[in-house]
Amino acid sequence: MASLPHPQGFLVGAAEAGLKKGGPDLCLIVSETPAATAGATTRNRFFSPPVAVTRARLDAGRLRAIVANSKNANAATGKRGLADAEAMAACAAAAVGADPREVAVCSTGVIGQFLPMDRIRAAIARAAAGLSPDGWPRAAQAIMTTDTRAKDAGRRVRIAKADLALRGVAKGVGMIHPNMATTLCFVGTDAAITRPQLKRIVRLAAERTFNAVTVDGDTSTSDTLIVMANGAAGGSKIPANSADETKFASALTDLLQELAIDLVRDGEGATKVIEVAVAGARSEAEAREAARKVASSNLVKTAIYGCDANWGRIAMALGNARAVFAQERVAIKILGVPVMRRGLPVAYDEPALQREMKARDYISIAVDLGAGRAKATAWGCDLTEGYIRINADYRS
Amino acid sequence: MASLPHPQGFLVGAAEAGLKKGGPDLCLIVSETPAATAGATTRNRFFSPPVAVTRARLDAGRLRAIVANSKNANAATGKRGLADAEAMAACAAAAVGADPREVAVCSTGVIGQFLPMDRIRAAIARAAAGLSPDGWPRAAQAIMTTDTRAKDAGRRVRIAKADLALRGVAKGVGMIHPNMATTLCFVGTDAAITRPQLKRIVRLAAERTFNAVTVDGDTSTSDTLIVMANGAAGGSKIPANSADETKFASALTDLLQELAIDLVRDGEGATKVIEVAVAGARSEAEAREAARKVASSNLVKTAIYGCDANWGRIAMALGNARAVFAQERVAIKILGVPVMRRGLPVAYDEPALQREMKARDYISIAVDLGAGRAKATAWGCDLTEGYIRINADYRS
Repeated sequence: MASLPHPQGFLVGAAEAGLKKGGPDLCLIVSETPAATAGATTRNRFFSPPVAVTRARLDAGRLRAIVANSKNANAATGKRGLADAEAMAACAAAAVGADPREVAVCSTGVIGQFLPMDRIRAAIARAAAGLSPDGWPRAAQAIMTTDTRAKDAGRRVRIAKADLALRGVAKGVGMIHPNMATTLCFVGTDAAITRPQLKRIVRLAAERTFNAVTVDGDTSTSDTLIVMANGAAGGSKIPANSADETKFASALTDLLQELAIDLVRDGEGATKVIEVAVAGARSEAEAREAARKVASSNLVKTAIYGCDANWGRIAMALGNARAVFAQERVAIKILGVPVMRRGLPVAYDEPALQREMKARDYISIAVDLGAGRAKATAWGCDLTEGYIRINADYRS
Repeated sequence: MASLPHPQGFLVGAAEAGLKKGGPDLCLIVSETPAATAGATTRNRFFSPPVAVTRARLDAGRLRAIVANSKNANAATGKRGLADAEAMAACAAAAVGADPREVAVCSTGVIGQFLPMDRIRAAIARAAAGLSPDGWPRAAQAIMTTDTRAKDAGRRVRIAKADLALRGVAKGVGMIHPNMATTLCFVGTDAAITRPQLKRIVRLAAERTFNAVTVDGDTSTSDTLIVMANGAAGGSKIPANSADETKFASALTDLLQELAIDLVRDGEGATKVIEVAVAGARSEAEAREAARKVASSNLVKTAIYGCDANWGRIAMALGNARAVFAQERVAIKILGVPVMRRGLPVAYDEPALQREMKARDYISIAVDLGAGRAKATAWGCDLTEGYIRINADYRS
């Protein structure tokens, strides 16, 4: 992690509130000055109180800080949960000298339990006391729930003679089928950019990354993505719709994609990442939905686990997508090997392909719908006995 | 099975085409006179050639016979598959003295292989030679694929002084998330009813039964439901929109419900049926979609397998439905025990409820959305290591 960049003007801290058995479970991400902010939250109708609070903050578009905890989602907790979320934001605001309306609050973990507010308050104070520019890895650790690895990524990009840094942390390996955003993901950057630009860039980047991954088809009640840009690198404002804006958007999309694929790779019980690239669709939205349909089919997921090049199930899953196409124009490749062409089976060396699938932990499926020029990619993971064991046990 | 009724004027036969290791794998269901017919087929865009052929027959609305085979779906087989499906119908028509346009054809099993037409033709001849009024159990056996039990059900109903019989067989325990119909289900009745009436009744009955069950969220390429009514019981025509029509519709819905729940009970790897009854919705369609969302959530299914009264996941799944509601009005019961009221947890005896869940193989979940007066029920099954084992192995 030593080589990941620290965006200037950001301080990060974490502490133990005792929600988790050992290790940090609460974090603070603070911008020294108000940052232009954009983000997205779950579309689940059972959205949690912290999501309700954070939505209002994102609407305002300026943040000084994010406070987040794991192991308790403060979801299905009603008015008391809402008051607790507001109190958590106010406590963090006081600790870092900000207005409570400039603090977003996120909770992830078990649904239906009240937060132990005394311990939360004490942990916020300790996290604030330990704020530092290189606290990001501890924040990544603090938001882990059933994750087995911390997700922490960074990008450097030079724009208009300024060296900009982006840094992001994410969590979530179950209840992952984001709709607008996923799980928790916090990004800080010292780029100078306006809020409307950031909003536009984040919306598209989220569609192409977090909204294109799936672990189990279930959209969480707590999904939140927040991107804060504080301009502390000292560069001039990135002009709207410029080549520089495109460069910044690429770096951000790239960062989010790394974190999103990290989630899938750590998907509950997963042994393989499944990449589904759909081309030849009428629109990018249809391509993405079709790709996601394949990546989230239990039958495709179990076939990949079994190292079975079962293109019949891929065709079945495509047939259930909303995308419009004619089956006689569809082509499918697995690991680059054509298995269907014009909607019909293609002869291929099945034992060789099976060996190849066994040897790899990243299986690419390429589909051409033959209906247009748009394309999109989605990522999922295989479905294994491990997923069953984790979820027949774990109380989420 | 001895006590199940035989609708008059129907003859049923089965034979071995050698697609399956031992046992019948092809069947004929024949009405001695043309029967008013209604049905439904999959909405999967990769629908199979037999589905294409049968759709044209259902549009015409009159059938003399159904010919069906298991173990080979004749799907993703293109023009040759279409010619094979037409040839299969023509062969069956010749064998029973019918017009080929009055014969529906259904194939279920592996995707992407051509039918061995010589063996199919020979088996059709043998099935025709063995036609009998009590052949239904053999037909139920012939259409089984990964099913562990045959699904065969009957109903008797007395309408306008005539004793009417209904008999139905069904198959399918994976790739089950019907859309318009599911899997294969064939029903014969000797009731006298017009085609428009039957069509209306079947549409609603299918929505409330087959379209309300789910095993794995994947809609098959071959789903077909066919109901044939030949009037052979000798009763007078059932008047449209009469109390008698309602009585007939109830008997048919009841029969389809038994078969649909049979599918779920035999769902791949399943140990428990999950019944989700949603009330208080704005419309029956919203209630059904919400119920199905809960019944098809991998996280709910694994929780039920783990005998965990995990209402948080039920709330999460409801939140992902299209149904409109306010979370603070939602109530949830598991096996009759209130676990959520007004969107908040309710204290309950958790060890007692867990013991109860362990003891039962039918888990009822009752939801009140508090948004209206409509209700609907859906049925699913738990998700276990058995499902993974079956589907990491089986080539469908």
